[in-house]
Amino acid sequence: MAEVVALTDPADPRLADYRDLRDVELRKSFEAEHGLFLAEGEKVVRRALEGGFDARSFLMAPRWLESLDDVLAGSDAPVYVLPEALIEQVTGFHVHRGALASLRRHPLASVDDVLAGSRSVLVLEDLVDHTNVGAIFRSGAALGFDAVLLAPRCADPLYRRSIKVGMGAVFSTPWTRLPDWYDALPDLSRRGFTTVALTLAEDSTPIEEAVDGVDRLALVLGSEGHGLSARWEGSADRRAIIPMRAGIDSLNVAAATAVACYAAARR
Amino acid sequence: MAEVVALTDPADPRLADYRDLRDVELRKSFEAEHGLFLAEGEKVVRRALEGGFDARSFLMAPRWLESLDDVLAGSDAPVYVLPEALIEQVTGFHVHRGALASLRRHPLASVDDVLAGSRSVLVLEDLVDHTNVGAIFRSGAALGFDAVLLAPRCADPLYRRSIKVGMGAVFSTPWTRLPDWYDALPDLSRRGFTTVALTLAEDSTPIEEAVDGVDRLALVLGSEGHGLSARWEGSADRRAIIPMRAGIDSLNVAAATAVACYAAARR
Repeated sequence: MAEVVALTDPADPRLADYRDLRDVELRKSFEAEHGLFLAEGEKVVRRALEGGFDARSFLMAPRWLESLDDVLAGSDAPVYVLPEALIEQVTGFHVHRGALASLRRHPLASVDDVLAGSRSVLVLEDLVDHTNVGAIFRSGAALGFDAVLLAPRCADPLYRRSIKVGMGAVFSTPWTRLPDWYDALPDLSRRGFTTVALTLAEDSTPIEEAVDGVDRLALVLGSEGHGLSARWEGSADRRAIIPMRAGIDSLNVAAATAVACYAAARR
Repeated sequence: MAEVVALTDPADPRLADYRDLRDVELRKSFEAEHGLFLAEGEKVVRRALEGGFDARSFLMAPRWLESLDDVLAGSDAPVYVLPEALIEQVTGFHVHRGALASLRRHPLASVDDVLAGSRSVLVLEDLVDHTNVGAIFRSGAALGFDAVLLAPRCADPLYRRSIKVGMGAVFSTPWTRLPDWYDALPDLSRRGFTTVALTLAEDSTPIEEAVDGVDRLALVLGSEGHGLSARWEGSADRRAIIPMRAGIDSLNVAAATAVACYAAARR
């Protein structure tokens, strides 16, 4: 059973994990160095623990204790309790959904483990927006994708915002980092996947045709601003496009991914 | 030609349109009362003016004047120029993409005008998130939808965040507010549209079947939290679902809309 510790000082060093949550750059390095990530909201905290992550600690206002009773009973991490206004001083914003948890990251899985048994995987190159990464995990999980591979520079799926938007799909979907950016797609081809890159390139095929008859599929997505690198676009087995009305800016990457996953799920 | 006015005082009353842009509630009432909306970023400002909106004024740091030269030449609104740090004091945040413009809202179009010549329309009930509203306008425009109708309580498509996420689709897509929430869907049916409500209801049909053979289509979408009201769900001609993997939280409304628009575009 987690021990409840009432605190009164927002500067208490035991709250270090929860400080300045709005400062993205600071959080990125802090969380990486300490091997932790944050979950926000009762539902997400619950899913993180159900997903097999261990808590370093919890932080919440008194009124949230009861709703997390069962979860806290299964953990031996301390539960720091503070009035809401003081929590806001620690985190830098008003935590609408109650509880926060600081959780230990697992070691990254191997590509072999992530791909074992997968028929449909998403491969994200250099997405920078945590909202998009979370939305893509969620859409992929809902529409039948089994796993996610990330290029070395893709935004972190365990960042607080990714987790929240992903509604916990980042806990239930196997994922890892690709160790080698340059040969990532040829390597997937060698493993028996057909790599299909979503692009706006002139020579691309409508997505439905591109995935037709494909058994093991790796759907490859580029960054928000510039799309895929020339290397990835060029080294994919196929290039696919979502047919769009002329003269319109393309779909954003999260919407395009949802459409492509839907088309792929029906192959 | 717009007159360039160099200002030095962030408290200058001529900057009233640009104040406290992060305070959503304050901005909503301020913008409604003054009949204005804000565009942010060179590209979006340009599209707003090309879309036929008149500027009340512009606000930018000196280095952005040149890139908007041609746009400013066609307007007679004042261009307030301030150092970037002072603009931040006015707006409450760092304006990454340079220029801001305050623009005059048009009177709302009639439903008749918006529907004239439309074959595919989106109907949004009570979406609360400006990001989702913008993303839906963008996906609809890209995937062949002609117009958007909003329930009385749906979030504003001319709010700064909606416009930014919509990449200007809110300027190029005809839209209006439905005057009557209760009979909105039966009224669309009387006008010759088949209303297809996207839901998670048990008795719903896969989206592709639901839109099959439909000529004039009104695709109906509910709010982020609770989906459609019982009235709208019950008064739609058909209820449709996007087939999803069991045990997964549904797609978010922006992703679901993109998928449904894609399926509808191919009917």
